Amino acid sequence: MSDVRRVFFVSDRTGITAEALGHSLLTQFDVVTEQATIPFIDSVEKSRGALKRIRAASARDLNRPIVFSTIIDQDVLAVLRDSKDIVLYDFFDTFIKSLESELKVPPQQIIGRSHGMADDSMYDIRIEAMNFALHHDDGATLRHYGRSDIILVGVSRSGKTPAALYLALQYGIYAANYPLTADDLVDNRFGSGLPQGLRHQKDKLFGLTIDPDRLHQIRQERRPNSRYAELRQCEYEVARAEAMFRRERVPYLDITTMSIEEIASTLIHQRGLSRRV
Amino acid sequence: MSDVRRVFFVSDRTGITAEALGHSLLTQFDVVTEQATIPFIDSVEKSRGALKRIRAASARDLNRPIVFSTIIDQDVLAVLRDSKDIVLYDFFDTFIKSLESELKVPPQQIIGRSHGMADDSMYDIRIEAMNFALHHDDGATLRHYGRSDIILVGVSRSGKTPAALYLALQYGIYAANYPLTADDLVDNRFGSGLPQGLRHQKDKLFGLTIDPDRLHQIRQERRPNSRYAELRQCEYEVARAEAMFRRERVPYLDITTMSIEEIASTLIHQRGLSRRV
Repeated sequence: MSDVRRVFFVSDRTGITAEALGHSLLTQFDVVTEQATIPFIDSVEKSRGALKRIRAASARDLNRPIVFSTIIDQDVLAVLRDSKDIVLYDFFDTFIKSLESELKVPPQQIIGRSHGMADDSMYDIRIEAMNFALHHDDGATLRHYGRSDIILVGVSRSGKTPAALYLALQYGIYAANYPLTADDLVDNRFGSGLPQGLRHQKDKLFGLTIDPDRLHQIRQERRPNSRYAELRQCEYEVARAEAMFRRERVPYLDITTMSIEEIASTLIHQRGLSRRV
Repeated sequence: MSDVRRVFFVSDRTGITAEALGHSLLTQFDVVTEQATIPFIDSVEKSRGALKRIRAASARDLNRPIVFSTIIDQDVLAVLRDSKDIVLYDFFDTFIKSLESELKVPPQQIIGRSHGMADDSMYDIRIEAMNFALHHDDGATLRHYGRSDIILVGVSRSGKTPAALYLALQYGIYAANYPLTADDLVDNRFGSGLPQGLRHQKDKLFGLTIDPDRLHQIRQERRPNSRYAELRQCEYEVARAEAMFRRERVPYLDITTMSIEEIASTLIHQRGLSRRV
């Protein structure tokens, strides 16, 4: 028997939304939890199976299991709602009645509709954006920069690639990235400004920067004890890159304490980009 | 003046959760909406700014604007809650009181805590997983397969790369991928089974397959009128690949109607993988 609270995220689709909101709620409390996700619960039978699994896992617990649900179908949800041995937080149905009276139309209870399934174009846009990010990663090619929504600029390991890929997969946004190399940074010392390939794309540029200590730590993981990873080298590159951003009036973001989601969301917000999916 | 309902997702962080749940709720109703996200509202001042923006945008609307919020701080939220000219759906505070009585500890209202900010290790794990996926994309190298949590196998354009990258960025899971080439599929005709490089990793393999018509459409976009994109070629490759999966008892998934999230979530579920972040 243990005092750990057992938590389940149950969804008729992936469970990502239930996880995100449930996790966000739980981290406000100083409790130890054991969490599991049960996705694709889209029939009464599967819901009964989920309940069985939840009960089996919690049989020896001191407290009732906590279940966060985003299940849409009333009958499927009822299996969980009618079980008094679980604590149900229903993220969907809680709001649907109130929305119905506000919108003055009845809800349709269509599972999957909310997730863009069967909409090939949504998939295609994200894949195209991902391919774009991969083909325009690390300045691999300067062609097609014109098609990009944003061009991320920064020193090696300043978070350009994950940001570009996340923008693609989550939002369908076309992000290229250009790494500032030693040459770019030395040139810059003589005041020659932006690297050649970027000069005609100035309105799309966005700089990423990072605390030199953190950059040192990241590079050290990658190439231990190399000149590349030296703290002095990191300090030099970051200082030069930031000086370039300021002089050329390229907006830039310090990503040191940000998650990938936060970087992507900030770029969209500050650049006024529109999601394509 | 228009009958379109104006909708805002307001959050103290990225707004991704508010968007996901709000979008999911709205798609249950047959209404036309105009949606915008207002992220990083983490002070009373910013909340007043958001309210101003919402009011300005909705000034000529027939209906009140709908606001979905995941704001944690009571004072910040109060600015929206006290405004009678908006309809507020509060995804966070709605549940926090009930959770408090269930957990028997007071909530702490710490913004950002819920998102793993300032937790460098979370960032590092996802970046490492992403680098792993990129370096083990399209069978680029068979080294380090041992470190992978899952190895995705399938014909070209069956969704391996987006699935691997999404698993990395969202869950920190190490996913390699191996494309079944013409050689692999011809060999297979003589019964030689799995490609050489995969034989010692059989417990990590997961096949992805796709409807040949859809594959044809995707390849056609990429290389119009090539042999590679021909419907007959797609049919041949898919049939061979599926036969290999069945004969070698490699579990596989038809991704034809799935979103990237659903593919990733299904792989995790069916393989019993644990998220690392």
